[in-house]
Amino acid sequence: MKPSLQGKSIIGFARGAGQEGKQQGINPATGEALEPAYAAVLPEEFDRAMELAKSAFAVYSELPGAKRAEFLRKIADNLDAAVDLFAERGPLETGLPEGRMRGETARTSGQLRLFAQLIEDGSWVNARIEHGIPDRAPLPKPDLRSMLRPLGPVGVFCASNFPLAFSVAGGDTAAALAAGCPVVVKAHRSHPGMAELAGECIMDAARETGMPEGVFSLLFGSQEIGTALVDHPVIQAVGFTGSRGGGTALMRIAAARPQPIPVYAEMSSINPVVILPKALEEGGASLGEGFFGSLTLGVGQFCTNPGLVFLPDEGGEAFLGKLTELVAAASGATMLNAGTCNAYSGRLAELDGVSVVETLAAAARTEGKAAPAVFSVSLEDFIKNPELQAECFGPATLIVRGPVDKMAEAIAGLEGQLTGTIFATADELAGQAALVGALQGRVGRLILNGFPTGVEVCHSMVHGGPYPATSDGRSTSVGTMAIDRFCRPVAWQDFSDELLPAALQEGNPLGIWRLVDGEQTR
Amino acid sequence: MKPSLQGKSIIGFARGAGQEGKQQGINPATGEALEPAYAAVLPEEFDRAMELAKSAFAVYSELPGAKRAEFLRKIADNLDAAVDLFAERGPLETGLPEGRMRGETARTSGQLRLFAQLIEDGSWVNARIEHGIPDRAPLPKPDLRSMLRPLGPVGVFCASNFPLAFSVAGGDTAAALAAGCPVVVKAHRSHPGMAELAGECIMDAARETGMPEGVFSLLFGSQEIGTALVDHPVIQAVGFTGSRGGGTALMRIAAARPQPIPVYAEMSSINPVVILPKALEEGGASLGEGFFGSLTLGVGQFCTNPGLVFLPDEGGEAFLGKLTELVAAASGATMLNAGTCNAYSGRLAELDGVSVVETLAAAARTEGKAAPAVFSVSLEDFIKNPELQAECFGPATLIVRGPVDKMAEAIAGLEGQLTGTIFATADELAGQAALVGALQGRVGRLILNGFPTGVEVCHSMVHGGPYPATSDGRSTSVGTMAIDRFCRPVAWQDFSDELLPAALQEGNPLGIWRLVDGEQTR
Repeated sequence: MKPSLQGKSIIGFARGAGQEGKQQGINPATGEALEPAYAAVLPEEFDRAMELAKSAFAVYSELPGAKRAEFLRKIADNLDAAVDLFAERGPLETGLPEGRMRGETARTSGQLRLFAQLIEDGSWVNARIEHGIPDRAPLPKPDLRSMLRPLGPVGVFCASNFPLAFSVAGGDTAAALAAGCPVVVKAHRSHPGMAELAGECIMDAARETGMPEGVFSLLFGSQEIGTALVDHPVIQAVGFTGSRGGGTALMRIAAARPQPIPVYAEMSSINPVVILPKALEEGGASLGEGFFGSLTLGVGQFCTNPGLVFLPDEGGEAFLGKLTELVAAASGATMLNAGTCNAYSGRLAELDGVSVVETLAAAARTEGKAAPAVFSVSLEDFIKNPELQAECFGPATLIVRGPVDKMAEAIAGLEGQLTGTIFATADELAGQAALVGALQGRVGRLILNGFPTGVEVCHSMVHGGPYPATSDGRSTSVGTMAIDRFCRPVAWQDFSDELLPAALQEGNPLGIWRLVDGEQTR
Repeated sequence: MKPSLQGKSIIGFARGAGQEGKQQGINPATGEALEPAYAAVLPEEFDRAMELAKSAFAVYSELPGAKRAEFLRKIADNLDAAVDLFAERGPLETGLPEGRMRGETARTSGQLRLFAQLIEDGSWVNARIEHGIPDRAPLPKPDLRSMLRPLGPVGVFCASNFPLAFSVAGGDTAAALAAGCPVVVKAHRSHPGMAELAGECIMDAARETGMPEGVFSLLFGSQEIGTALVDHPVIQAVGFTGSRGGGTALMRIAAARPQPIPVYAEMSSINPVVILPKALEEGGASLGEGFFGSLTLGVGQFCTNPGLVFLPDEGGEAFLGKLTELVAAASGATMLNAGTCNAYSGRLAELDGVSVVETLAAAARTEGKAAPAVFSVSLEDFIKNPELQAECFGPATLIVRGPVDKMAEAIAGLEGQLTGTIFATADELAGQAALVGALQGRVGRLILNGFPTGVEVCHSMVHGGPYPATSDGRSTSVGTMAIDRFCRPVAWQDFSDELLPAALQEGNPLGIWRLVDGEQTR
């Protein structure tokens, strides 16, 4: 595969003409503008993408799971084949290293293959059958069968921090395509080249596997294109990963539509970590080293970055000593883009200015780079200053020190989070039901004696959590359960077998797990 | 059981004092005000209900399913024991007949017992387990386990048209209590006595089965109480059945909260019925009679009332003859309350005034009663006048006549509906994939050769549908799948067995169905 960046939107199987080049990716390490310039999608091209998505839905939503699985596998193969291109372009656009691009490519293609496997198996549709009882008194019982069906075309927004895994061919796209929904992606201005490369992989796969035109489109352009996407009547759900401001803006647009639609926005999380006294003592310096690794992974630009640590008010010298030593000695690193870097510096300056907050350690700050930092505050002051809960996107963390028996209260007062972590010995955890319960109530994923960074793509992952970690804590953006986001249940009453979807036919031709007259059976 | 109406809110295990009596039920048949007068909940009582719900959640959400099932069964028993009281009070407050009250009591207690069975079995929690692989390269795979957990206290609004099945102890309450969520109900002003009777059944059951105080409260008062309920930070989800105006108002309040919450509002539906030519001929007069029965059931005050019929432009004399004959000969009947009756009369007058709409038959209109009516419009004019899709809550229907091959287009242009019905012979349905597909896209439940009124409470029921049939087509308000409304998934990573919820422990102590390393197993 040869690089072939054209700087144009992908509308079904064709390239948009676009308006004259306007947006260019910027190398965050050098400030250099990257070729090509990206043309904003034209209004008529936008309309055509919508029309195509609508007509594609009628066909695509009715395809057997096995056919859609072929498409997903082909996308995965195309992504893997393009890994060198991603490895070359990604670092230029994001400042992330080449190895990360290779790892993320594998994760993204693996994710698509996992969804392919899920829909090939077919049991995910939650098929339920209850046979009729015509002679039931006082009224006959009808034959009722239900299953999940796709919602319709889905709008997906690319994330700045995962140019592959949460972008054009990322989790939302994989889940929506698996469910039977066409996808229209709005590229992120920070990595348009990565978007185009991934978009080509999907477009080619759609053509190669005989998918209807419009099952996928990729739009370049300003924020207004994103607004128009969420507002368009064809779009039936939205996936977004980004800032709280961006996510809540999309929620407002979606709620104000004549037909409101669901928005799945993953927004902000500071991922509290609680370290109990014995674990703190036993972990010592190596725990501090592990924590430093999690804090600075990807320059702290992970949704699950540990931005808050509850530490007992006594002990922990080895842990803190190691952590502050590593932070003080660290160098600044290039963030995803200048905006992110400026926001990080601004937040550090804010924290510097809060009287109750002490700076424990900070790497030397270099212009245009993000320097790790560790702050500290008392539990009492933390509770009194809810603004200290604001996300600081980058390699900084706030250590909250206080008595262990006051931590549950502070945790119960936290905003919703993606993850909550506890370091504890088995002994000391046994007595902390209230603390564990409080943490469970505020998070999507509880972690014991591990670090929150790193999100496994599997059936049991929950990458979600109460607002404002996400707009809707009832779902996950990672793992196979994400397919439920883009579906709704439909029931068929008294239909004859040949008119029912295969998943609901009496003889179970797909061989899937179903709930038949209240019993799980295959 | 003796009637003991006190006219006071139920706050946990106690009665509110309330402000001086303000709201009284009105007998819609006579206009007579019914004793007692109902005192609006006081601000401090409201606050106490919220505090109690919050503290009850911490305890109630952790109870084993079998304990919660006991509570649900006790409520069901108490409702059944109170059936004579419902049969006496219900007709006075709603104009609905005694037999309906008895039937609805049985449905409501049956619904609670079905949820009791569901949570006793326990498999509903969607438990997923993936074992860790510590030596996986390049990174170890953690042990991950997930299941559904309750959202928190739920606010439930009573429906006017189902004083039992969609009110205090109705579907939303049953699903929320089953999920592990405390419930705070706002009574409907039309049937406060029914609300109090049902509320007593729940309060007594909670005490009798040792549930924490605050697992249930019942509030009387004005619309502002409802607004305050949706707006209160303790409340984590809302269930509502009623008008489109009411539902969308609650959606706006919920979306504007600092922490937006899901609103499950069932709002309006005209439940299209398509009758294809052969079915029309074969059905003849008896189809007309059946349709009349469905149209006038409960004075047309069912959410699934068939308010729209697509009929071929030729034939159907026997069907129409019988239907119009029965409608013309019908008498007016008492509706739920004067407001509903006035709205119905107003809508009839509107339809009378639309030039493209013809009145095919109308019962004699009597002051204060609802007279059945049948209107007709051409398919062409129906498409041109989208305002004809507005719900006419009551025993009236609009017949749309046109060529069968144009019906799919008209149906694709419909707003979201709870149900869609097709009458067809097996032969003629085979050629109508586009029509069936269009209908499926607009509804929650497809019915073949039956009437939409009548909603079976079971595992496979979908009583939901795209907006504006409901605020959120991704769920159902009837049947066991409704429990999902009040839950979110939570994952545990690398927890040791004794710290995991029983549903996720290695030995499967609850004996539930689980997805273990990708395989469904029990």
